[in-house]
Amino acid sequence: MNLARFFRPHGIAIFGASENFTKINGRPLKFLLDQGYAGRIYPINPKYETLAGLPCFPDLAAIEGDVDLAIVALPAQAVPEALEACITKGVGGAVIFSSGFGEMNEAGRAREAELTALARRGALPVCGPNTVGFWNAHERVFATFSQAAEGTAEPGPIAFVTQSGAFGTAIVALLRERGLTPAYFVNSGNEAVLTFADFLEYVVHDERVRVIAGYIEGLKDGAKLLAVAHEALVLGKPLVLAKVGRSQAGARAALSHTGSLAGSDRVYSGVFRQHGIVRADSEDELLDQVAVFATCPLPAGSRIALVTHSGGAGVLMADKAESEGLETAAFSDDTRAALRKVVPEFGSISNPVDITAQFIAEPRLLRETLAIVLADPGVDLAIFYLGLMDSFAETIVEQFRAVRDGSEKPLLIAWAAASAGARAKMTEAGICAFPTATRAVAAAGALARYARTRERALKAPIPRAAPSAAQGSTAVAAGAQRTFELLRDFGIDVAAWKVAVSEDDAVAAAVEIGFPVALKVESPDILHKSDAHALALDLANEAAVREAYRTVLKAARSHDAGARIDGVLVQQMISGGVEAIVGVKRDAVFGPVVMAGLGGIFVEVLADVSFRAAPLTMEDAYEMLRELRGFPLLTGIRGRAAASVDDLAELLVNLSSLALAQSATLAEFDLNPVKVLSDRAVVVDALLIESR
Amino acid sequence: MNLARFFRPHGIAIFGASENFTKINGRPLKFLLDQGYAGRIYPINPKYETLAGLPCFPDLAAIEGDVDLAIVALPAQAVPEALEACITKGVGGAVIFSSGFGEMNEAGRAREAELTALARRGALPVCGPNTVGFWNAHERVFATFSQAAEGTAEPGPIAFVTQSGAFGTAIVALLRERGLTPAYFVNSGNEAVLTFADFLEYVVHDERVRVIAGYIEGLKDGAKLLAVAHEALVLGKPLVLAKVGRSQAGARAALSHTGSLAGSDRVYSGVFRQHGIVRADSEDELLDQVAVFATCPLPAGSRIALVTHSGGAGVLMADKAESEGLETAAFSDDTRAALRKVVPEFGSISNPVDITAQFIAEPRLLRETLAIVLADPGVDLAIFYLGLMDSFAETIVEQFRAVRDGSEKPLLIAWAAASAGARAKMTEAGICAFPTATRAVAAAGALARYARTRERALKAPIPRAAPSAAQGSTAVAAGAQRTFELLRDFGIDVAAWKVAVSEDDAVAAAVEIGFPVALKVESPDILHKSDAHALALDLANEAAVREAYRTVLKAARSHDAGARIDGVLVQQMISGGVEAIVGVKRDAVFGPVVMAGLGGIFVEVLADVSFRAAPLTMEDAYEMLRELRGFPLLTGIRGRAAASVDDLAELLVNLSSLALAQSATLAEFDLNPVKVLSDRAVVVDALLIESR
Repeated sequence: MNLARFFRPHGIAIFGASENFTKINGRPLKFLLDQGYAGRIYPINPKYETLAGLPCFPDLAAIEGDVDLAIVALPAQAVPEALEACITKGVGGAVIFSSGFGEMNEAGRAREAELTALARRGALPVCGPNTVGFWNAHERVFATFSQAAEGTAEPGPIAFVTQSGAFGTAIVALLRERGLTPAYFVNSGNEAVLTFADFLEYVVHDERVRVIAGYIEGLKDGAKLLAVAHEALVLGKPLVLAKVGRSQAGARAALSHTGSLAGSDRVYSGVFRQHGIVRADSEDELLDQVAVFATCPLPAGSRIALVTHSGGAGVLMADKAESEGLETAAFSDDTRAALRKVVPEFGSISNPVDITAQFIAEPRLLRETLAIVLADPGVDLAIFYLGLMDSFAETIVEQFRAVRDGSEKPLLIAWAAASAGARAKMTEAGICAFPTATRAVAAAGALARYARTRERALKAPIPRAAPSAAQGSTAVAAGAQRTFELLRDFGIDVAAWKVAVSEDDAVAAAVEIGFPVALKVESPDILHKSDAHALALDLANEAAVREAYRTVLKAARSHDAGARIDGVLVQQMISGGVEAIVGVKRDAVFGPVVMAGLGGIFVEVLADVSFRAAPLTMEDAYEMLRELRGFPLLTGIRGRAAASVDDLAELLVNLSSLALAQSATLAEFDLNPVKVLSDRAVVVDALLIESR
Repeated sequence: MNLARFFRPHGIAIFGASENFTKINGRPLKFLLDQGYAGRIYPINPKYETLAGLPCFPDLAAIEGDVDLAIVALPAQAVPEALEACITKGVGGAVIFSSGFGEMNEAGRAREAELTALARRGALPVCGPNTVGFWNAHERVFATFSQAAEGTAEPGPIAFVTQSGAFGTAIVALLRERGLTPAYFVNSGNEAVLTFADFLEYVVHDERVRVIAGYIEGLKDGAKLLAVAHEALVLGKPLVLAKVGRSQAGARAALSHTGSLAGSDRVYSGVFRQHGIVRADSEDELLDQVAVFATCPLPAGSRIALVTHSGGAGVLMADKAESEGLETAAFSDDTRAALRKVVPEFGSISNPVDITAQFIAEPRLLRETLAIVLADPGVDLAIFYLGLMDSFAETIVEQFRAVRDGSEKPLLIAWAAASAGARAKMTEAGICAFPTATRAVAAAGALARYARTRERALKAPIPRAAPSAAQGSTAVAAGAQRTFELLRDFGIDVAAWKVAVSEDDAVAAAVEIGFPVALKVESPDILHKSDAHALALDLANEAAVREAYRTVLKAARSHDAGARIDGVLVQQMISGGVEAIVGVKRDAVFGPVVMAGLGGIFVEVLADVSFRAAPLTMEDAYEMLRELRGFPLLTGIRGRAAASVDDLAELLVNLSSLALAQSATLAEFDLNPVKVLSDRAVVVDALLIESR
């Protein structure tokens, strides 16, 4: 849907308008008037002739001019009629404040379904219902009753889209305290028609927007979010999202390991990382990340210079830099020589640099030191920390401005207990400032990580995720034969196998494959063979195979007398290597997602797994392996050989292609174990669950 | 040293006093005059007759009255003479601002050593040198040049001791912004005489102090800190410490696993936890923890009620509560019935409770809801979240006060974007408030954890740590015989062993112990037998033992032809069980510390180990095992038997007794592996490094 008329309307109608500016139906009128909206405003209320000095209309049809946006502030039951009128008149979009829909009860959900159908039929873009509304501050469009719209401030290069109205309002207020007024604010409400991702898609294309922030509780349209995230990444507009609801459990009991490990939060984390979405875990983190992205250029690397007048703050920042993945830069000899000339003898010219309180007497010391470290080719960004200094605020901010203007590299300021005056001066000068050393370093870490992700994305474009297809509701396990062939078709290495239907058959298969072999019952009704004891390992000769054939079948029958048995699988034994578990799960939001984990015990005890949405690039596969705590198992630890990371990464990529190709039926897929040797990654067992 | 005269002086002399109130030597005079110090002030400066209206003295001897405290603001070289004068006159203590000592260079370190010797000889308590000084705001003693002393404010129940002057000043400024003015501020400087722990010891005994905060970079006196921490815990005065310098490496290359894993930060974390010291990892965390401890009673448990007017904030808080170890309380039927009567229909009466924006119209809704949830016997503490609401601040704070006064349970407020007026009103009312939902929940988590630790400490008193004894500098490995006997003497189970000096001997030993056995070379020069291949496992009969005897000796000789060989150790094989690694390291700060880790691979790949200072209680031992990521290995995971946590915990306690008894010589000690079976924890191999 095209949202141009919705976001930049020339005429706005307000259903249920009121002159009482403290009420929900009065506030938009007040905001539009106060904030100087330049288009036409049409209050609709049959009770009045005029409202706040404007002509008031009995209904939409009575308005002669074009209406681009309708604000609906009516009781729930009156909403359908208003929407019908909008469609009839050809209105460009509507925002529905009314509650009493899906958030309420069964009746509300039914009302919401009708509303969705009506809007779709009329191709009417609708925000809400149950929303506090939205604004576009550039065009002074305040279609909201949010308290956060009070007062005026120059809009910053920021858009903020939120699924929560009250919490979103609070976040905007906190942003404004920091001098970061969003140009766009949208509360997506119940998302009966337009979703979170639809709004993101619009704002990301406004050239005045450079940073997009969001708050989500759950997504209706994962594929679209990822598509928008991709565009944002290419455009270099960071997308910072707070996602809550971490403790949510999956909707259906899982049949596979992959399924049971795919807690929604792990999937979100992996997919966000893959698509360059910056995740915020708290309000402060969201604010700090928006601040740093709105005011700083991207650094070329992660080497940071830390400058302070306090040795203590220096140590704290160096600690935090390490945990943020930043490297405390080693200065060049030239830099050290230059610093030696300006830094007092009792200070420190190593990183962290301590310029001592001397800079109060000599403000140029501040400017010179920062200019010297930023000019070092081994430095990608810098932080200056200071505390208090109320009396010198003006001079100090001037020094910051001069340094910032003289360098292409990011300069972040941590100013503890800065006065209101100092903060205002920094905001005015567009200086990127934080209230503590720790938060400045965390923001610098986010900046450097984003720069790295973006660089990678521009080199090897991130493929678009596929929309998730509808699936049946009956879960069926595929046979080993079909499962292994499917894997092979997608270039995945499987330990050699044959299905035998007699003892002689089994012996012939073992001879062909080569001893030792394993035997496993082949039955669609026995998913976990080891639980049923219906398998035998390390069979070294013909006699062992013959005996195992009988015992495996017997165990299978005693486990489940009614199980359909298609024979016995004879398979090559793979010895040595590092065990991996790899899998696919069809996620309700993101479609097929691929999982990787290492070393059975790490997965079992620590749930040490990572996820990415299909399709995967090789770089995605390497990253998801590197973020495993157990990654050193692959690269070799004391007394153990290294295993082929390349082969395992390739297997993940191939599996993601398979998952996409099979997305209409694939529900869950475990490749467990995969044995990673020095020159191959080979599937030893697999369980494929399909939805039909 | 008795610090009573130092902290509560009736007369203060200022060496190098000045009338220039912007200078280091002028500021204390200004502060003492401005802040209304009631005792006598004696400026010392041969250049003046009077200073700021006070008689000025040419030297200390010229002062007739008693001087309890001397402030020394002189160049470094003039300090010794001033201290001599203090000792001669019988001054009660001195604070030395002067820099140019240990922080500077070799000459400075020598000067500092002289200063230490001088003060000790004269029994003169000295703070500094290189300190910004201290204050005791109750008695208006401002012996400092810190900017943070500017302005007046009622002191809160808070003491703050810091090793960094500039950073400490910034922290105090941040505390004051929050309405939390420390009654005591001390910058311990170079700690030439009085240490961080000495100052803590004094302030913890002032009944007006209820919370102690501190900032440390490194400790000189770990045992004293722990003794003070213990007193603070018994008194119920939380000790919140920010410790920086996490990346510090150990001073000496370690010979044992335990030694190499004992990075100072892991030891600090474990020992702090053991002794109920609350660790703060950032400035915000320090401030929030001080705030919550200064204003809230301790809760009886961890069951929290979350109340908001925003569903979004509720979800965020529930997420965060889980990660903080808090339990979202399940309300009783009575509570739900009572809530149903007051909460609007479109709100939520489950936890998190959503009272909706209706409370603006009906402020009593706020009070009633909070009173109902706090009255539930299944609720231990509560948080109320709100955003903005500038116009109703006064009414809202009144509701908070009424609820707080009506309950014994902690009530925390998260008020996003609260106006300055609202914040001031809450400070005045002593309401515990935070700027974001996340931070309020984190503070609630710290409060509940502290309450739990204190409860445990009062039940089973934490034993005092031993002062660390001096040790020699030569590291020597003890023989297996001596090592195993030492373990046995302290009640630690060791796999049966004998040392054989001939093949026949070895066979006889194996028969006595019972097959299978292991053979290992016994040599003080071969520390790691497996690296030398000088061991043989799983020897099932006489012939195998005979052959192994020869090959083990041969391998030892080919590994190191000059190695002293005392024979071959014959030892019982222990099969099954969970592998643990347990150890001791003599820590420079805390004396002997005990380490525990599980499952070789968790220790190797994840460095998954925990530390505690000796001596350990059983509860300490359980806690250090429970905090291991690999703990589920002990309790049994899918397909594996459980191992005896009790036996392993007892082993840790016994090892800590051994470590204390041997503290004069024990440098490092690995028990690796320890096999934990269902009914015993048995040491299979051990390496003891002694300092002589």
